[in-house]
Amino acid sequence: VRVLINRPGLLSFQKYYILISKSQIKLITGLQQKKYRDKSGLFVAEGPKVINELINAGLNLYLLFATEAIGSLAPDPELITHKELQKISFLKTPNTALAVFKIPKEQSIQESGMLLALDAVRDPGNLGTIIRLCDWFGIKQLVCSNDTADCYNPKVIQATMGSIARVQVNYTVLEEFLDSAVLPIYGAVMDGDTVYSKQLPSEGILVMGNEANGISSKVARHLDHRITIPGFGDNQATESLNVATATAILLSEFRRTTGM
Amino acid sequence: VRVLINRPGLLSFQKYYILISKSQIKLITGLQQKKYRDKSGLFVAEGPKVINELINAGLNLYLLFATEAIGSLAPDPELITHKELQKISFLKTPNTALAVFKIPKEQSIQESGMLLALDAVRDPGNLGTIIRLCDWFGIKQLVCSNDTADCYNPKVIQATMGSIARVQVNYTVLEEFLDSAVLPIYGAVMDGDTVYSKQLPSEGILVMGNEANGISSKVARHLDHRITIPGFGDNQATESLNVATATAILLSEFRRTTGM
Repeated sequence: VRVLINRPGLLSFQKYYILISKSQIKLITGLQQKKYRDKSGLFVAEGPKVINELINAGLNLYLLFATEAIGSLAPDPELITHKELQKISFLKTPNTALAVFKIPKEQSIQESGMLLALDAVRDPGNLGTIIRLCDWFGIKQLVCSNDTADCYNPKVIQATMGSIARVQVNYTVLEEFLDSAVLPIYGAVMDGDTVYSKQLPSEGILVMGNEANGISSKVARHLDHRITIPGFGDNQATESLNVATATAILLSEFRRTTGM
Repeated sequence: VRVLINRPGLLSFQKYYILISKSQIKLITGLQQKKYRDKSGLFVAEGPKVINELINAGLNLYLLFATEAIGSLAPDPELITHKELQKISFLKTPNTALAVFKIPKEQSIQESGMLLALDAVRDPGNLGTIIRLCDWFGIKQLVCSNDTADCYNPKVIQATMGSIARVQVNYTVLEEFLDSAVLPIYGAVMDGDTVYSKQLPSEGILVMGNEANGISSKVARHLDHRITIPGFGDNQATESLNVATATAILLSEFRRTTGM
């Protein structure tokens, strides 16, 4: 029996906790793996803030569990105990709510304005931070190589803080997309022109490479402009910036120089 | 009996694995906690790259364990098995080497050039990324409020990728330091002047605030200039940038505008 709070006839202090079924636990914990996300077309988001932003953006809610009411946007959650939440949460320290959403259908890539492209960015935390940066800088289109981390990985979803709802992410064979692209293509490399002295366009594609190896040679062939963030240390031992911080600086430069 | 590789009389293929003593395991695993680091004056670093950079920077090596030789800078490690390394490692996927270093004596704060100050940055990953950024942009002095994450936390050490060796980190009562500071003080806030149109100095102090609450009121009283990174999204739902990516953008702006 599922009883929800805030229903007519129920006083607000009456809480009826439900038990999550074994099949639900199996479904939810399985969604940590990409193959089960692909198979089911579902992904997990945790915490009232992220869940509310996804609902607000029009994503399709499939399941919602919480230890307390989570805010005005969401429908009444199915109330569970903290102990039950721990069984299904991917977080070390579970929040108060966990939702399962339907993965939206992939839209075609919109080649207009500024686009960001990722070549094999593998770390989910980096991808999540980069999606949050896209949202901040008004980048609506993120194009990822097929070997980039999956944007519906729960770690990515948490790191985006809800920004995933406002950035379109596509996975494709990156070199083929760049080969047919019309906009000028900029790539972040270690030995390019300093970005501070470059004339940057208001429309273009910025390519960021893998954490360890940078942009692959297959993708690098398509770059029209190779740009670099100059270092200022005496010591040249610092090998490189983290891909997320480098993306932050470069997107800031594109937005600053082209006016707003 | 401890037998090291590459010693005269030993052929290179002769490897003698030692057993780590229980007291060493207890010491090393204890160093995950700040109170044991403070008590012993020791901290842990993992992976040949980070260990070599710390040795190169002149830090005092106390213990060195590895599953194989780790490079030219380091002395011969005590060889242990991967299974033993797992017992002492803080990483989910242990690297090939773990070292214990002595925490260097805290030097007095050098108020010259650009300084970065952190007001209660709590996440070790953020602190590590910020130390790496300081190194890249030639910031030699990082001043932290006492409630900022400890820079000898193993997660910080790993995230710095060795940069901790080239950035001086001090912990202090931040508002007292700022009260007596001579250089102009800039603070990152949500409602300040856009950083892109500000005349930035080549010498100054940039203050970054806590992940959730920004700069505290006690510290904010000392700001001479309140600066903001403007967002470019239509949707104002993006609350803020992550503190590490915001630091990246602001340090880039200071370095860009003042020439190098």
